[in-house]
Amino acid sequence: MDTIKIGLLGCGVVGTGVVKQLISNQENIARNTGCRLEIKRVLVRDLNKNRSLDLPRKVFTDQADDIINDPEIQIVVELIGGIEPAKSYILASFAKGKNVVTANKDVLAAHGREIFAAAEEYQKDLRFEASVAGGIPIIQPLKDSLAGNRIKEVLGIVNGTTNYILTKMALEGKEFAEALAKAQELGYAEADPSADVDGLDAARKIAILASIAFRTRVSVDQVYVEGIRDISALDIVYAQELGYTIKLLGVAKEVNGEVDVRVHPVMIPNNHPLATVNDVYNAVFVEGDAVGQTMFFGPGAGELPTASSVVGDIMAIAKHIRLGITGQLTGCTCYYNKPIRPIGQLNSSYYLRLLVQDQPGVLANIAGVLSQHQVSIASVLQKRTLGHLAEIVIVTHEVKEADFMASMAEIRELPPVEKVDSIIRVESTNSNG
Amino acid sequence: MDTIKIGLLGCGVVGTGVVKQLISNQENIARNTGCRLEIKRVLVRDLNKNRSLDLPRKVFTDQADDIINDPEIQIVVELIGGIEPAKSYILASFAKGKNVVTANKDVLAAHGREIFAAAEEYQKDLRFEASVAGGIPIIQPLKDSLAGNRIKEVLGIVNGTTNYILTKMALEGKEFAEALAKAQELGYAEADPSADVDGLDAARKIAILASIAFRTRVSVDQVYVEGIRDISALDIVYAQELGYTIKLLGVAKEVNGEVDVRVHPVMIPNNHPLATVNDVYNAVFVEGDAVGQTMFFGPGAGELPTASSVVGDIMAIAKHIRLGITGQLTGCTCYYNKPIRPIGQLNSSYYLRLLVQDQPGVLANIAGVLSQHQVSIASVLQKRTLGHLAEIVIVTHEVKEADFMASMAEIRELPPVEKVDSIIRVESTNSNG
Repeated sequence: MDTIKIGLLGCGVVGTGVVKQLISNQENIARNTGCRLEIKRVLVRDLNKNRSLDLPRKVFTDQADDIINDPEIQIVVELIGGIEPAKSYILASFAKGKNVVTANKDVLAAHGREIFAAAEEYQKDLRFEASVAGGIPIIQPLKDSLAGNRIKEVLGIVNGTTNYILTKMALEGKEFAEALAKAQELGYAEADPSADVDGLDAARKIAILASIAFRTRVSVDQVYVEGIRDISALDIVYAQELGYTIKLLGVAKEVNGEVDVRVHPVMIPNNHPLATVNDVYNAVFVEGDAVGQTMFFGPGAGELPTASSVVGDIMAIAKHIRLGITGQLTGCTCYYNKPIRPIGQLNSSYYLRLLVQDQPGVLANIAGVLSQHQVSIASVLQKRTLGHLAEIVIVTHEVKEADFMASMAEIRELPPVEKVDSIIRVESTNSNG
Repeated sequence: MDTIKIGLLGCGVVGTGVVKQLISNQENIARNTGCRLEIKRVLVRDLNKNRSLDLPRKVFTDQADDIINDPEIQIVVELIGGIEPAKSYILASFAKGKNVVTANKDVLAAHGREIFAAAEEYQKDLRFEASVAGGIPIIQPLKDSLAGNRIKEVLGIVNGTTNYILTKMALEGKEFAEALAKAQELGYAEADPSADVDGLDAARKIAILASIAFRTRVSVDQVYVEGIRDISALDIVYAQELGYTIKLLGVAKEVNGEVDVRVHPVMIPNNHPLATVNDVYNAVFVEGDAVGQTMFFGPGAGELPTASSVVGDIMAIAKHIRLGITGQLTGCTCYYNKPIRPIGQLNSSYYLRLLVQDQPGVLANIAGVLSQHQVSIASVLQKRTLGHLAEIVIVTHEVKEADFMASMAEIRELPPVEKVDSIIRVESTNSNG
């Protein structure tokens, strides 16, 4: 039986999981791939750290070149994360004739085109199932079983930290700051939580999913992004009363040949499959012209779940090496060059919560401004009176975002309007964006 | 660009969907596969039927040999269903050097070993994503992205008819017969509904999933099966009160090297991801040692959803033909020969509902019998009094099925026990069967 040698760049949480899984499941893996997989070298920062992994000491190195320049290594597994040096290592690995598995959403969402071009130039495999939604198989199902569909939309809960925070807020009535503190205490959020709570992490993932779903390269800087810092416990309660759950979604749709791609809080109907995806779980909802509505649910992060995807990718590449077909089945599928649809062109319903003077004529005043901008009202609720102020919640019918935002700019200037507290987009399933 | 020619055996609901999708999405398909896919022949029963498909009349034939013996056809898509003549056609197709896509759960669950052996003998591809859970990608994810896992359990809502019936019973309080009539009216259930409601259809699908998950051949006759005819609206209400939803599940677990595989109604906790899968939707819940808990949700049947899976399979095979690697990546993965665990060895909790004489000492009597058989009681509820009879619901702790059933045989004979109305197994997630 042939042996295929692997080099790991990085041995943090995911790397540790990959080593454990490759060792503990080696018999199955050998049966399935028809070859033995050997971890030849592992790049680490600190050679002296005690790792309690079942690998000889000589496997570890602090020099990336020991892996990239080793002609015996056929698969490089990049688990460093971030842009550099990960990007250089990946490109160098292809140039040295290696196949690459990566869990790195940052580099793929920013430099996907260049990385795929290098894979193609050197006819090597690039697999990246773990880069989106951790352990959930979603990249390969889109590229394989669902390949015969024209995808209409992808909606993803692809950031576990924010989903945990929103779940805590919904189920325990906590405010954002308190729920974030709890997430940090449990290790679900980092000390600087901005990449998660401001939506950047989700933006990277939806850029990758949109690229595959719509067969056109979408990079992270093309994604419209809002985070969840402004969501209040009150909005979550009012959303529930209206029959909605608030989730931070990555949204990607194709509308008249353009790609609508964005990350922001969304009110989704309580009976939507994504509405009950709670805590740190992730889920990706896919609608295709043939398959209809499907959803893929599971753990979006963690040592072994992420390792599950990485090991699946390694096994697929090992089979391709054995058959001499690397670079033939896993190439870039961005055949088209579709424009990005500006956020102003979005058609959506909106939820808004505002504080106004509690006096006659105010609502007529607001409704007048809305109607001047073609915004029609689906429902109005007066929620509470706070001294001389009244809290009003309005849900609109579908309207063009640019028109809605123009109406909001005017409404903010109306004398009896004290404050616009919240604006949240409402997703009605089967809308076309 | 090369053209790969396809022959369709059968042009009913799914076949019609496959033709439509191959034609309407041909540009994408050609970009993705690197070749043109041409439907050369379609086997139909009645050549004179008007089909409103965008295919020349000469494509249709009523002779299977026109497809099986045509040397130009490289992919045969078997959509006839049932055992014969489907099985003979599949075997003959391999013998004639063709690759096969099938949506046929019946033949795979009964004769999988023979069919896979033929695919291997002739080094051809066999793909069957549509055979389980219609449009949901589940076969390929298990074989690809999740391949690095040891699967612990697969729980599937894999029959849309029974899920529709149970949903109607739960949400509208209907009894089984009434919900079945509604399903028949809507075309979700056949005039003779037994394959669905008695669990045989689900048994075929769980046999296929168990074979892949545990890498050992499981055939349909090895699956323990109970259907949903005996579920009453009352049980569904009581289950809800206890925090459970009743679903017909295909269950497959590996326990100490043995495969526990069965289909029967199950009470699952309301917070289980499968509990909110309603109507005709299907879902497959998979737990692996690395990935943890994942779920795949979507439409389990229908013209275009099923065609989605079939077309994905055709595209994968087309790429393999182009690369000259048919039979190399898609072979049988049943490397092991694991015994089937007898149903009597199952460890489960049980819900039982019984009618007893409303008199002192009856419960003590029942509890005594249970305890003689090592059955310990988790909760007892007296639900209603009906004249001189009392309705009692008991939920047990985990116990061996053989012991539980022995206790039930004795309890049925107790003079004050009028009737044992229901026995339903209770699934506690993370139990090991």
